[in-house]
Amino acid sequence: MVFQDRTGQIAGNLWDADDYMVETFTKGKVVYMRAVKELYQGTPQVNKIYLRLPENTEPNDPKDFKPKSVVNEKELRDYIQKVIFKIENATWNRIVRYIFKKYDKAFFEYPAAKTNHHAFEGGLSYHTATMAQLAEKICEVYPMLDESLMLAGILLHDMAKVIEFSGPENTTYTLKGNLIGHIVLIDEEVSEAVRELDLDNDKEDVTILRHVLLAHHGLREYGSPVRPQIMEAEVIHQIDMMDASIMMMGTALNQVGTGEMTPRIFALDNRNFYKPNFDQK
Amino acid sequence: MVFQDRTGQIAGNLWDADDYMVETFTKGKVVYMRAVKELYQGTPQVNKIYLRLPENTEPNDPKDFKPKSVVNEKELRDYIQKVIFKIENATWNRIVRYIFKKYDKAFFEYPAAKTNHHAFEGGLSYHTATMAQLAEKICEVYPMLDESLMLAGILLHDMAKVIEFSGPENTTYTLKGNLIGHIVLIDEEVSEAVRELDLDNDKEDVTILRHVLLAHHGLREYGSPVRPQIMEAEVIHQIDMMDASIMMMGTALNQVGTGEMTPRIFALDNRNFYKPNFDQK
Amino acid sequence: MVFQDRTGQIAGNLWDADDYMVETFTKGKVVYMRAVKELYQGTPQVNKIYLRLPENTEPNDPKDFKPKSVVNEKELRDYIQKVIFKIENATWNRIVRYIFKKYDKAFFEYPAAKTNHHAFEGGLSYHTATMAQLAEKICEVYPMLDESLMLAGILLHDMAKVIEFSGPENTTYTLKGNLIGHIVLIDEEVSEAVRELDLDNDKEDVTILRHVLLAHHGLREYGSPVRPQIMEAEVIHQIDMMDASIMMMGTALNQVGTGEMTPRIFALDNRNFYKPNFDQK
Amino acid sequence: MVFQDRTGQIAGNLWDADDYMVETFTKGKVVYMRAVKELYQGTPQVNKIYLRLPENTEPNDPKDFKPKSVVNEKELRDYIQKVIFKIENATWNRIVRYIFKKYDKAFFEYPAAKTNHHAFEGGLSYHTATMAQLAEKICEVYPMLDESLMLAGILLHDMAKVIEFSGPENTTYTLKGNLIGHIVLIDEEVSEAVRELDLDNDKEDVTILRHVLLAHHGLREYGSPVRPQIMEAEVIHQIDMMDASIMMMGTALNQVGTGEMTPRIFALDNRNFYKPNFDQK
Amino acid sequence: MVFQDRTGQIAGNLWDADDYMVETFTKGKVVYMRAVKELYQGTPQVNKIYLRLPENTEPNDPKDFKPKSVVNEKELRDYIQKVIFKIENATWNRIVRYIFKKYDKAFFEYPAAKTNHHAFEGGLSYHTATMAQLAEKICEVYPMLDESLMLAGILLHDMAKVIEFSGPENTTYTLKGNLIGHIVLIDEEVSEAVRELDLDNDKEDVTILRHVLLAHHGLREYGSPVRPQIMEAEVIHQIDMMDASIMMMGTALNQVGTGEMTPRIFALDNRNFYKPNFDQK
Amino acid sequence: MVFQDRTGQIAGNLWDADDYMVETFTKGKVVYMRAVKELYQGTPQVNKIYLRLPENTEPNDPKDFKPKSVVNEKELRDYIQKVIFKIENATWNRIVRYIFKKYDKAFFEYPAAKTNHHAFEGGLSYHTATMAQLAEKICEVYPMLDESLMLAGILLHDMAKVIEFSGPENTTYTLKGNLIGHIVLIDEEVSEAVRELDLDNDKEDVTILRHVLLAHHGLREYGSPVRPQIMEAEVIHQIDMMDASIMMMGTALNQVGTGEMTPRIFALDNRNFYKPNFDQK
Repeated sequence: MVFQDRTGQIAGNLWDADDYMVETFTKGKVVYMRAVKELYQGTPQVNKIYLRLPENTEPNDPKDFKPKSVVNEKELRDYIQKVIFKIENATWNRIVRYIFKKYDKAFFEYPAAKTNHHAFEGGLSYHTATMAQLAEKICEVYPMLDESLMLAGILLHDMAKVIEFSGPENTTYTLKGNLIGHIVLIDEEVSEAVRELDLDNDKEDVTILRHVLLAHHGLREYGSPVRPQIMEAEVIHQIDMMDASIMMMGTALNQVGTGEMTPRIFALDNRNFYKPNFDQK
Repeated sequence: MVFQDRTGQIAGNLWDADDYMVETFTKGKVVYMRAVKELYQGTPQVNKIYLRLPENTEPNDPKDFKPKSVVNEKELRDYIQKVIFKIENATWNRIVRYIFKKYDKAFFEYPAAKTNHHAFEGGLSYHTATMAQLAEKICEVYPMLDESLMLAGILLHDMAKVIEFSGPENTTYTLKGNLIGHIVLIDEEVSEAVRELDLDNDKEDVTILRHVLLAHHGLREYGSPVRPQIMEAEVIHQIDMMDASIMMMGTALNQVGTGEMTPRIFALDNRNFYKPNFDQK
Repeated sequence: MVFQDRTGQIAGNLWDADDYMVETFTKGKVVYMRAVKELYQGTPQVNKIYLRLPENTEPNDPKDFKPKSVVNEKELRDYIQKVIFKIENATWNRIVRYIFKKYDKAFFEYPAAKTNHHAFEGGLSYHTATMAQLAEKICEVYPMLDESLMLAGILLHDMAKVIEFSGPENTTYTLKGNLIGHIVLIDEEVSEAVRELDLDNDKEDVTILRHVLLAHHGLREYGSPVRPQIMEAEVIHQIDMMDASIMMMGTALNQVGTGEMTPRIFALDNRNFYKPNFDQK
Repeated sequence: MVFQDRTGQIAGNLWDADDYMVETFTKGKVVYMRAVKELYQGTPQVNKIYLRLPENTEPNDPKDFKPKSVVNEKELRDYIQKVIFKIENATWNRIVRYIFKKYDKAFFEYPAAKTNHHAFEGGLSYHTATMAQLAEKICEVYPMLDESLMLAGILLHDMAKVIEFSGPENTTYTLKGNLIGHIVLIDEEVSEAVRELDLDNDKEDVTILRHVLLAHHGLREYGSPVRPQIMEAEVIHQIDMMDASIMMMGTALNQVGTGEMTPRIFALDNRNFYKPNFDQK
Repeated sequence: MVFQDRTGQIAGNLWDADDYMVETFTKGKVVYMRAVKELYQGTPQVNKIYLRLPENTEPNDPKDFKPKSVVNEKELRDYIQKVIFKIENATWNRIVRYIFKKYDKAFFEYPAAKTNHHAFEGGLSYHTATMAQLAEKICEVYPMLDESLMLAGILLHDMAKVIEFSGPENTTYTLKGNLIGHIVLIDEEVSEAVRELDLDNDKEDVTILRHVLLAHHGLREYGSPVRPQIMEAEVIHQIDMMDASIMMMGTALNQVGTGEMTPRIFALDNRNFYKPNFDQK
Repeated sequence: MVFQDRTGQIAGNLWDADDYMVETFTKGKVVYMRAVKELYQGTPQVNKIYLRLPENTEPNDPKDFKPKSVVNEKELRDYIQKVIFKIENATWNRIVRYIFKKYDKAFFEYPAAKTNHHAFEGGLSYHTATMAQLAEKICEVYPMLDESLMLAGILLHDMAKVIEFSGPENTTYTLKGNLIGHIVLIDEEVSEAVRELDLDNDKEDVTILRHVLLAHHGLREYGSPVRPQIMEAEVIHQIDMMDASIMMMGTALNQVGTGEMTPRIFALDNRNFYKPNFDQK
């Protein structure tokens, strides 16, 4: 069982649940818990759990207890619009606008992952926007990178998670998510856009945008059917890794005190991280 | 340099080629060669090579010197038609017909690979037909396998090699072949067929056919963005491996005498194979 | 704890067993259970278990609750005899007859594995017979395969499991099974047969049969001391994999409804499989 | 044999060199070459090579034919000073100043690698400065990163290459380079600085700086005795990879025309990269 | 929870601990236990645990219940002195003496590991002494090995575990242990010794001793920043593996009867070992 | 082409061999060579080769130019007899005597490997004897090791190389060597001995000796069908690795001067080793 509030998540087992408890405390409900927090193989968990439902005046809306995106949707929308505006290649710009129009609502609601990094409501747009920010900065250092391609690739790279996932809450994989996956699903969306916008499917820039999207997991083992063979594809992959890992490390470090180690993070090769006492400088 | 005739290929180096030779003996030409065949690290190669062009009455059409498909095109076409006829699911049947109509000519001309197995003209249709034969036999042993799905998946699995490769001769990868690959390219073709045939893209059988095609390389490391998660997808992958490996072993064994080892076959983990003297039984 | 009936197995924990329970409900006994079936990390298990012994008139013979081979022993025996008859090479035919005579009874009783595929009584002969069927079909497609070698290799490949395992029920590994393994144990049986039948141990066909048996796990990592270097050895390995994986997928799919995913199957790289709603075609 | 001019390097073999040639055309000399450029397994090389020494008035100073750092030393020095100034933690600032004073001259002369990325004179300082630029930009996006630690770690991370390498030209590994390596050698330099500056070796910030330096190769397989377990250590590793890979891709792309593939780059998993025709937008 | 007495350790879970129990039975305390020993996935554990504190006259000093080094400290000290005396190279001899003087007390108290092999008080000196014995024997067989280097390397190889670990009891990793590790920490100690003893840091024998220490884990994956490139470094690594594995196997075999298998040993690739009935010879 | 004299081997290519040369300078002949020794990718080779046959009075017996075992056969025979005498378990002693009697001559003539370590005439007995010496020493350190089992296992472990290899000169693999391998071939010899000596094949000590032999390559990837699960099996594997690696390092170091690196040794993960100037102590 995993308990979650705005500050994070913690696992725990309820060893002697009776029928009443099983029926009462279900997934997605707000419960009040009293428990003992302990370490199990280096990972915190709660034991000796007492649960009850919220009483009359206590808050009982699950939304109040979920982590929220750090930036509000309005600001994200404005920034994404600004980024689209910077895509100078007309083919890419039109494809991006077509797909953003189609999935506008979901893009700002969905998480970026089922677990791990950015697994919160609005996480998809937040992750995308942070990557775009990184790309803008990095293009200042390396003028040989094509900024339009970087930004078009980043804006679309995870968009098909709105098809891969069931929705922003109690997120599971859809059948298409399981059997096709968001990498091929975004390729399908680009092909549809090319057709609907009457673009030339054999033009090099269409092939390159598709490549950048297909290759963004970097390694075939991670689900990309092709490895990056365009410089911008490689750099987008690295930016994706950088933002995902910083988000995971930052989230874990936020939950421990200075001078402590975080729990092990599975998606970072099971490493744990130390939170230094920097202010003693 | 690789020399090829109808019986196979052999590598050799021409260490002291002068300008005349470089201009005269180019890729795709028929040449007459006298040379010494030797073993280099267990692989045969030719050394001390003397080359000349064909003279007046000698055959000089490259087509006469290329390995040919073992079965003629007419028989292959008839068999493929019979197989399509056995696909009972209407959705899959219509998608297969649509794509076969679109790429009819190329399907019977292209090789199945640039090197390795079935790397000869007509190899693609020959490999596909042999896999279909295997599938028919295997479905007799395991009635729980859906034969329609097996056959539809096999007929389409490598079809996009006609987009991935430049053509049946002096085959190279196209830009789309390099940057997108035949696995995603066939997915795009299926999506197009679904749209043009006005089928329902959200029906389960469309998703399942796409999965079977995307997963046919079996492992992500081999370029499949998803691993087989439908029983038929797993078995199609195994049939693909079986036919490819038997073709590679058989080709290599055909080129050595009984009681000899073949050269090492890179695509079979660099193993070499022994050709026994079975008739002594 | 693992509970088993004719339809499959399920795991569960009895957290608060008292002395009476530990003594009463032991391995191999028939018990009646009432429990709640739940998912634990995607795998079904039972919780809140109530157990009791069978009462007067209730069935209490463990044999009535074990999965049985799908084909009856009589049919299997007849088919195996037919297969032996098809082995034309006299050396192989005599070795196969010698070993089948020696282990006749056990061969039709033992499972093919301790867990995973064909882990039921009679599983060894069932698995062997299905592989022989596949080999017969595949040899029709590829006439260059030596059918006698294919069938001799398949009939013997897992035979030494009758030495490796303790017996058909509550199967464990014997000391020889642990320290030597069925791959080398069948090699020892072949050597004994060669000696007892006064065959020439240095004849090529003896060496080749031994190679086919030693190599049937395909990879050294899986316990074969040599990798397949005879074409038939490679194909037997592939047939073994095909039958084992289809059996595992089929068993798992039989236990879920259409539109559901199976639990993850460890021996298939921890994949789970989807059971489609094919009849909606 | 590898030939090099300011635009890059190319390999070639001189198959029939006589004594005169072997003595005349030695490593580090300027030679004039006429040759045929060909592809060997996808990598360009020169064949049919004619070599001669420069004549009277022709340039003959090797320095004129080596790639030069893209930025001049004066600018690099100024920027590095500015970066040191931004390190607010006094311990780190003093250690960095101590080591930069000790190796000032070599730091601006040495390459960053023997082959692969930044393998040119001044490459070490150029690579270091570019990474510092990236760090400054990335810290703007992620305020939780400690910029002082990022900059101190980057300035020192490759500094011990001035001990690992023999010098800026015809670079080889020294005995200490081979047997100890620059990762442990910089740790020794920090320990010396701590002692000479009378800092407290047990203070957390000394340990953390040492960790960041020891972990900068990211994986143990790449020679880091510890994996990054401080957030800034992980990000410095990623910045190092990003700059090294962009330098390698950029160098390779500079040597081919638009619409062409680069040769395969060994250090990037043997991938080759496509140079698109972006201006056709 | 792990229970330990002089004969070994065993794991168990206390599912229904109340507050009293949690406060009473804490880490490092002597408790009296009554429980049922069972196998869980092949590993023994205790269940149905009853715990109580020692009563009046019962032994209650934790030291009485810990495994002790098999040889007494006096003998170990004498042997270590003898070994140091055999190091003929003056540089190495002085460095070894310097470091042994500095850490004399801890060296004879610390364990050699937190878990796994030699994880008992005094284990560090015991492991070191056994390795030195092996080295003396092996140098008799291979006279080309430099015995001084072998012995100096062995004496120092794990010494920095006295910095890496918190202490001989309830051992945990220190911050330096986590972030720097004993391999680099001993390198720092050697550098300090070189400086304090006014030795020449650029002499080859200093570099070689440092290499031997840095390389003693054999593989980079195991935390050595360099792989052994001196013959003695490779052999020291092998001796280290040999003693660690024999200690782990021996400890596990001591806890089972003849004719039984040990539990699986994680650090030996999860193998379990059979204890034969040798006396039946 | 590989040239060999008593001091070692060196590779070289004869680029422009004419017919006369190909016929004259064949494998196994004594030739006189004048050539230039150069480094190719860090490995020495000879170029610009001039070859001639020995003249009248020059030595022309190939045996005079092959590396010889360092110890003479008489001493080896005496030592091996002494070792057999130390095997106290009667079963093992009789099996060892049986097999040594059968292969007496070949055991003292064959090499221990086709290439790599001990690839010289008499290398098999030399390698076996050195391992036995190591075992005797190591058993002094660890009295819990059963010395009889150690010695019996070592004496037989590589014995079947006399079946695996074609003979002591121009060594190649036999068909049985290729398709069965010396690990299973020695198992067959033990089974034969058990039968001929009328021993009980089901006694534990027979099974254990077979296990030790089957497991001596340590890892399945290296051709052992079972991993060591008896303590002595693990230690024999380690002794085998130790002697093989010391022989390879020692041979390579003998061919370079002090202060130099050896060529890279493929079988030691392609490492090269440094030969120190130890006498400067």
